[in-house]
Amino acid sequence: MVRGQDRPGGSADGSRQATPPRPRRGGGSRPTIGDVAALAQVSKATVSFVINDRPGVSPQARQRVLEAIDQLGWQPNAGARALSTKRSQTLGLVMRRPPELLSTDPFFPQFVAGIETGLAPLGYALVLQVVPDEETERQAYERLARDGRVDGVFLTDLRTDDPRPALMTELGISALIVGPSQHGGRVPALGVDDGSGVRRAVSHLRSLGHRWIGHVCGAAGYVHTEARCDAWRGALADAGLPEIPPVAADFTGAAGAQATHQLLDLDRPPTAIVYANDLMAVAGITAATSRGLRVPEDLSVVGFDDIPLADCIAPPLTTVRQDVLTWGRTAAQALVSLTEGGEFQAAELPPVEFVVRASTAPPRT
Amino acid sequence: MVRGQDRPGGSADGSRQATPPRPRRGGGSRPTIGDVAALAQVSKATVSFVINDRPGVSPQARQRVLEAIDQLGWQPNAGARALSTKRSQTLGLVMRRPPELLSTDPFFPQFVAGIETGLAPLGYALVLQVVPDEETERQAYERLARDGRVDGVFLTDLRTDDPRPALMTELGISALIVGPSQHGGRVPALGVDDGSGVRRAVSHLRSLGHRWIGHVCGAAGYVHTEARCDAWRGALADAGLPEIPPVAADFTGAAGAQATHQLLDLDRPPTAIVYANDLMAVAGITAATSRGLRVPEDLSVVGFDDIPLADCIAPPLTTVRQDVLTWGRTAAQALVSLTEGGEFQAAELPPVEFVVRASTAPPRT
Repeated sequence: MVRGQDRPGGSADGSRQATPPRPRRGGGSRPTIGDVAALAQVSKATVSFVINDRPGVSPQARQRVLEAIDQLGWQPNAGARALSTKRSQTLGLVMRRPPELLSTDPFFPQFVAGIETGLAPLGYALVLQVVPDEETERQAYERLARDGRVDGVFLTDLRTDDPRPALMTELGISALIVGPSQHGGRVPALGVDDGSGVRRAVSHLRSLGHRWIGHVCGAAGYVHTEARCDAWRGALADAGLPEIPPVAADFTGAAGAQATHQLLDLDRPPTAIVYANDLMAVAGITAATSRGLRVPEDLSVVGFDDIPLADCIAPPLTTVRQDVLTWGRTAAQALVSLTEGGEFQAAELPPVEFVVRASTAPPRT
Repeated sequence: MVRGQDRPGGSADGSRQATPPRPRRGGGSRPTIGDVAALAQVSKATVSFVINDRPGVSPQARQRVLEAIDQLGWQPNAGARALSTKRSQTLGLVMRRPPELLSTDPFFPQFVAGIETGLAPLGYALVLQVVPDEETERQAYERLARDGRVDGVFLTDLRTDDPRPALMTELGISALIVGPSQHGGRVPALGVDDGSGVRRAVSHLRSLGHRWIGHVCGAAGYVHTEARCDAWRGALADAGLPEIPPVAADFTGAAGAQATHQLLDLDRPPTAIVYANDLMAVAGITAATSRGLRVPEDLSVVGFDDIPLADCIAPPLTTVRQDVLTWGRTAAQALVSLTEGGEFQAAELPPVEFVVRASTAPPRT
């Protein structure tokens, strides 16, 4: 799903100097790189790769590009080409979080691995930085932009009041938001539909007979947390189910256990709980079991992520799986295309998958 | 623990050209950068940072360096300084593994986070690449060296027949092995003592009364797997315990479950099993439970890693914790020092910690 189509500031070829945007093709006397790409049925980035003799283009595509160049009599702009070869062929990912929390997030390594599968064939590399706070984060981006270390950056974990999209425009650096965008933002975003996972969870539990379902949501202040909470309320309303106020947690096991006790302490405790990640769900199962409840007989539990451990525990966890590897690969290709002066193309990501295992069952009657 | 002290090929200042090594300070007429560093009680890298006006040096250290330069009348070598400022201030980490397996390894994100905490104050960045096979791996290093994208590289997951240490010498690129070194290798290595974790596990189980202990070890072909298997045999021998042949697995939950069944199918099954990682240990608990065994009453289980989930499951997992964050930070500092022409200093890492939880107990009598 794609939110926002505008590109941030900076020139179309990714250089740091302010240059006027290249004119779109009008009447059509001189062929453009876009014409070559269209005829060869490849992206403009691929045409650029062929003329700059970069790796990562299949022999077939290379042949089609060369034939299209011949056929159209296209002459690559020498200036643009020189600029192009000065590019760093490197993308940046700056993650703001306490380093010790990085390993609790199953998204990060999978997403980085996905980026790599997208970048490797294009000959691009990834520069990674982990920063502890907003000030250091800003300095990291300023430095990456100033030194020309990267051609573009991924923006992950967008916060509701996040200054980064505006900063990227100010720095003239190409950027791609990973996940849902801010309202009214101009930086392109690439994410899966956060709502579909919770809708699938509610639908599954409702079909089992659950009518009183609790929710442990993620850390406050993130756009993706808000998007999922909104989707949660919508899914319950659509299913005609009453809402128990969601309990906010911070994705850690301890917070998941605490939130579970809070829900189970209610005068009328839920018969099922949906968690914003698997780690909290597993801690929730243990918390429920410690109170003498059986999962799934007395309480159904749904996670989110499908971590490798999800089917190694007892009971194996019913959860939502995102294809984060494909997401990362697609994001890498989209950002390279943006930095090469390409248009942002609406990329379709695989839908989330709902994995039914043994932690969910009909409620006791 | 440090294995190997020699630096790989390449000049002392990290440039790619072959230059004669700088003479060590002899009698002592002209002061060297080492003298400045010693007087200011900082590393030579820090002196270099100060004269090149790079971020990441505390005001106090900067002041001490400037005073030491004054006091000694030291003149930085202009040529070396020019070379120094041409450096990329970037280190490389190339990981060879299937991308989909990256997320099952708790080491990777913690180690990367640790590297970041070491590099950020020095103004360095990390370039990350994930490659699927040995050929792509070689190309990745050649490209990083040729393009001068990095000043040095970390070598992780060293294989028993690993060509990378020799390749780094050939490419003239500074390198640091993370973990145990190959026998007779010349590239410096920084790792914790792999043996201490398994020795602690054996000692703990023996003190509980276990005499017949099984072991599920990691993927074959890695230096660290061999080092731990050797340590395992040594620990059993030292404790005067008989050895059940270790079962090789590949760190996945499925392999951990299968290896557990294999051990429990023995005519005389073990009363305790030590696993090479937590994921296999959790899968082992589930496998044992599915056979009607109770953990820890009928079988004690020890993991390795202390993943965030280890204390969220029932029973909470007894395991070995390495301070991977500190390991990564120390490795980053050591590699920067190497690339800045510093000597490799024997860095002491924190010892592994043995975390006793509820998955171990005395055997049934």
